[in-house]
Amino acid sequence: MIYLDNAATTLHKPPQVGPAILSAMETMGNSARGSHGGSLDAAHTIYDCRCKLAALFRCPRPDRVVFTSNVTEALNMALWGLLQDGDHVVATDWDHNSILRPLRHISQERNVGVSFVHADSNGNLLYSDFEDLMQPNTRLIVCTHASNLTGNVLDVARVSEIAHRHGALLVLDAAQTAGSREVDMAAMGVDVLCFTGHKGLMGPQGTGGLCIAPGVEIHPYKVGGTGVQTYRETQPVQLPVALEAGTLNGHGIAGLSAALDYINQVGVGAIHDKEKTLTMRFYQGVRDIPGVRVYGDFSGEHSAIVTLNIRSYDSGAVADALWDEYEIAVRAGAHCAPRMHRALGTVDQGAVRFSFSWFTTEDEIDTAIRAVKALAQE
Amino acid sequence: MIYLDNAATTLHKPPQVGPAILSAMETMGNSARGSHGGSLDAAHTIYDCRCKLAALFRCPRPDRVVFTSNVTEALNMALWGLLQDGDHVVATDWDHNSILRPLRHISQERNVGVSFVHADSNGNLLYSDFEDLMQPNTRLIVCTHASNLTGNVLDVARVSEIAHRHGALLVLDAAQTAGSREVDMAAMGVDVLCFTGHKGLMGPQGTGGLCIAPGVEIHPYKVGGTGVQTYRETQPVQLPVALEAGTLNGHGIAGLSAALDYINQVGVGAIHDKEKTLTMRFYQGVRDIPGVRVYGDFSGEHSAIVTLNIRSYDSGAVADALWDEYEIAVRAGAHCAPRMHRALGTVDQGAVRFSFSWFTTEDEIDTAIRAVKALAQE
Repeated sequence: MIYLDNAATTLHKPPQVGPAILSAMETMGNSARGSHGGSLDAAHTIYDCRCKLAALFRCPRPDRVVFTSNVTEALNMALWGLLQDGDHVVATDWDHNSILRPLRHISQERNVGVSFVHADSNGNLLYSDFEDLMQPNTRLIVCTHASNLTGNVLDVARVSEIAHRHGALLVLDAAQTAGSREVDMAAMGVDVLCFTGHKGLMGPQGTGGLCIAPGVEIHPYKVGGTGVQTYRETQPVQLPVALEAGTLNGHGIAGLSAALDYINQVGVGAIHDKEKTLTMRFYQGVRDIPGVRVYGDFSGEHSAIVTLNIRSYDSGAVADALWDEYEIAVRAGAHCAPRMHRALGTVDQGAVRFSFSWFTTEDEIDTAIRAVKALAQE
Repeated sequence: MIYLDNAATTLHKPPQVGPAILSAMETMGNSARGSHGGSLDAAHTIYDCRCKLAALFRCPRPDRVVFTSNVTEALNMALWGLLQDGDHVVATDWDHNSILRPLRHISQERNVGVSFVHADSNGNLLYSDFEDLMQPNTRLIVCTHASNLTGNVLDVARVSEIAHRHGALLVLDAAQTAGSREVDMAAMGVDVLCFTGHKGLMGPQGTGGLCIAPGVEIHPYKVGGTGVQTYRETQPVQLPVALEAGTLNGHGIAGLSAALDYINQVGVGAIHDKEKTLTMRFYQGVRDIPGVRVYGDFSGEHSAIVTLNIRSYDSGAVADALWDEYEIAVRAGAHCAPRMHRALGTVDQGAVRFSFSWFTTEDEIDTAIRAVKALAQE
């Protein structure tokens, strides 16, 4: 299989991830639920992973790294926990249903207004909209760091400056960027960073979380046992337990921690550069094929995604042909990004997304280019 | 290490669990996010696990098995998704903070009344309270199947009959029983069963879920992408995606599925019988030791827990001595069960919980008995 669906999940993981999970399965009790060796082993492993994530994302304190089961849960937690009655929020056409649906539900349950920054037909956000949409009651701007459809990358510092100048927070969805490019909360001015462990961080599924800047308080979302302060009737207020009810995915976190070791060894810069080279190689190989239309803007920062359509062929049929005839795994359809498809005019056709990782090879890229070429000639 | 903290998490897993996770790490894409081999592999593995759980718990349809990251999330989902303004709920002194804290938060955010069935100093629930506490607006009774502190087991059919006669639902927290004793939703009359994967089911951490009886509708809690119905602004209504936003813990679910194969091979009845034998062996070995006080009622159904105190010794100090001197892992303190400690009169002292599993040996039990005896003589 040539796996080019890394924006959905990375299939190829660093060699130490599996053994780290296995090792944890043999030694790990329940973190923070006891003081015996098994429990302490779990606590150390989890704390260690918090420290690595804090360092990677420049989150000032490891106790402000909160684990969740995926980035969707992290975004639900951030949005439900920050938005109160009477607030206003600015989101964008880039955003995934992991942002859009929580906002829709919150706006129904609480009196919260939502405005959207639009994207043009190249998928570029109209940055001037951010400024225009800010209101006195705008609590936060939420946006994905890179569109999961086009791969266009947000100018985070620019958006953060607007948010902060208006007294609002910036919640950044790093689902498509964490591990693949520099995500520096401090330098970029990110107040809440939401990440997933199983994509660019190359860890197991069932991991993810939030990094929360000092001074930002998120009201508890999922509540329950924490192993501490049992007699307190409400959720403890200190991080991370304020947002971490129930037993964490210790085994998965052990795998994520091992993946972070690998990333630190290779370097995020090297990963970014390699993925960029692969992405541009594929883009340059397909953009001039007659009948192929590539979406997004490749003149600036771009994630490891190239999305295209071939003539008016249904995107699902193209993906099926790539799989059946070439064993190339890609993603077709709507990608949980409804507003972005509307901006691109691809609601009916969907689009075929090729997404790359550190483990993708140039040979795989070249095979995929030849496959697109062949399908476009049919 | 003699691991007797299985009520917190089972450390010893069936031999096929680790390899199943490793195998999934090598083949699994993102379930329901594509139609290539990797994605279908994930979808099959997850669906297969739903089928096994539905069969184990006698949930009539696999699509009514919903995965979460732990039982706490399942309970939050059930309670937030069922309780509306003006409702009333009956809970019990047995309940863990995974029930108590969601109820507290819900009662604060929505106009929901909460009444509690009390336990006596043996830890037995006063069943007549259930009937007395029912009100015309009682939406549900929620209770744990077995106290995580005393091991006393609920007469589920009795409570279910009361709930249903009053037009209420029964939400059962099977954190301490799933995998270790028969949990038959149909026969017991359970409307929503909440379970965790890493305790009696002997799977990895980061797994758990709900089984939802036909006709019971739970309002979505965590919302976001589902890989289907992208253009729908709110969460899709059909199960399981209505309650499963974002990427599932496919790797963990693969491990859980392997654990279920082991459980099915051994048989829940055999597991229950062995754990009962071990529990009674320990109970009979410690109950008459001078200075030892055992909590709970061992005359009827009981889970694989024996909780005790030695003289007026701080429970944490006893647990530390068991670990330091004998390498026996137990859990001391409050166990996230504040109301139960109040009923037992052990708020200040806490209690020392010994909890057993299918993999516990009689030799380990005997060593633990000798250790308690020695500590009681100090």
